[in-house]
Amino acid sequence: MKIVWIGAGNVATHLSEAFARAGHETLQVFSRTMQSAQTLAERLGCDATDRVEDIKPNADVYVLSVKDDVIDELVEKALPHCENALFIHTAGSVPMEVFRSYVRHYGVLYPLQTFSRNKSVDFKQIPLFVEASDDESLCRLRQLASSCSDKIYELSSEKRRQLHLAAVFACNFVNGCYAMAENILQSKGLPFDVMLPLIDETANKVHTLNPIVAQTGPAARGDVEVMKQQVDLLKDFPEMQEVYQAMSRCIYRMKHDMELNDDL
Amino acid sequence: MKIVWIGAGNVATHLSEAFARAGHETLQVFSRTMQSAQTLAERLGCDATDRVEDIKPNADVYVLSVKDDVIDELVEKALPHCENALFIHTAGSVPMEVFRSYVRHYGVLYPLQTFSRNKSVDFKQIPLFVEASDDESLCRLRQLASSCSDKIYELSSEKRRQLHLAAVFACNFVNGCYAMAENILQSKGLPFDVMLPLIDETANKVHTLNPIVAQTGPAARGDVEVMKQQVDLLKDFPEMQEVYQAMSRCIYRMKHDMELNDDL
Repeated sequence: MKIVWIGAGNVATHLSEAFARAGHETLQVFSRTMQSAQTLAERLGCDATDRVEDIKPNADVYVLSVKDDVIDELVEKALPHCENALFIHTAGSVPMEVFRSYVRHYGVLYPLQTFSRNKSVDFKQIPLFVEASDDESLCRLRQLASSCSDKIYELSSEKRRQLHLAAVFACNFVNGCYAMAENILQSKGLPFDVMLPLIDETANKVHTLNPIVAQTGPAARGDVEVMKQQVDLLKDFPEMQEVYQAMSRCIYRMKHDMELNDDL
Repeated sequence: MKIVWIGAGNVATHLSEAFARAGHETLQVFSRTMQSAQTLAERLGCDATDRVEDIKPNADVYVLSVKDDVIDELVEKALPHCENALFIHTAGSVPMEVFRSYVRHYGVLYPLQTFSRNKSVDFKQIPLFVEASDDESLCRLRQLASSCSDKIYELSSEKRRQLHLAAVFACNFVNGCYAMAENILQSKGLPFDVMLPLIDETANKVHTLNPIVAQTGPAARGDVEVMKQQVDLLKDFPEMQEVYQAMSRCIYRMKHDMELNDDL
């Protein structure tokens, strides 16, 4: 299929390269900053533009892969008038119906993965969640998605919103915890590397154990003395202190199905 | 060396088996519950007891591996009088000096790993942090530690306390985030398994990227609209809502070195 990319961030970069490897033709990359458009276009060997008027009208698929808060604006202003083209976005929390008033065939392709520039991933293993406006669009979208991943699931906008929320916990907040650990270690001159076996095993464990069964640590044990000491160690970092308290209360609740006596 | 274990929980189980594999002789397992003492003693092929008076006095090393809040009590009541034996505990947040008034040679061996029963780990890769009361004890402790791991670090009680705090973030809170993700998915009938590639890649990324560089998601982008929506989705789970808000504020602070306007 001939594809135009609207957006040139991390998701667009990884997804467009996976599509290119699967044999699809990239016609063009649009980005609001010419530099970004050009960088991705060079990797893909196609044209770049930063003007919505110049977006090519002859693609089979237009993929919007931009920040959630500019999808509305770009749907309104940037989509060319192509009766037969398929328009999709890649956002977790934006409903498919954002396209409804503007185009005929539309859908969503949400890749459940975290992408960083210059860090490649095995695309075949990435779950792709799809949804489309009509059967024909769904069929084309499934065809496109299955050309680069083995794991395609159909999912409604409402459930995708929940999936995205779960991913914020399992990825973004998890990484936030790594960053906080690094802050603590750095302040004492300890290297972050010593954490890696622990980090790997923690991720590894939930492949075979339910997370709440795998839960260990002071909050899971209800060890209030240690928790108090640790809250105190964070006195110079009020935001991390808040995270510590909120996480501990929530873990205790999940493990014991009751509230932790709130004297942290 | 001849070893007596005081405690039979997850850490004692994994550590004692690693020591046994390294060729050390286990004399006995003490636990306050006979059932636990027997379970571990059977795995190790040694005696079990739940009476402190019966703890054997002829070991080279006594390892206290119990909940932090009972270490004090056991140090006072359970240690036999052996001038030459080495007494160690395995706790992250308990200072070495807890032994000072009771025995002559003492120290700490803190394994930086999460242990669950029936989930084996590669002990050679586990960083062990050691500290001892005197040079001779340190030498014996290093010898013991290096018989089962390749990664031995000397660390003071004060730094170990910080390391333990960092581990609570990088392991216990991370697992808490997995458990919260599972709660969200379960409430919508979605399987937790779809998260595993994302979880693995999130852990994998920090092997090569600094965590704060690797940070993605609504809080890192400062996408207040998505954050507000997601806080709203959690309205029936007040503890998770608190975690969401505290984590988002902290991630924004780390990524942008400024406060998130507090209208979440």
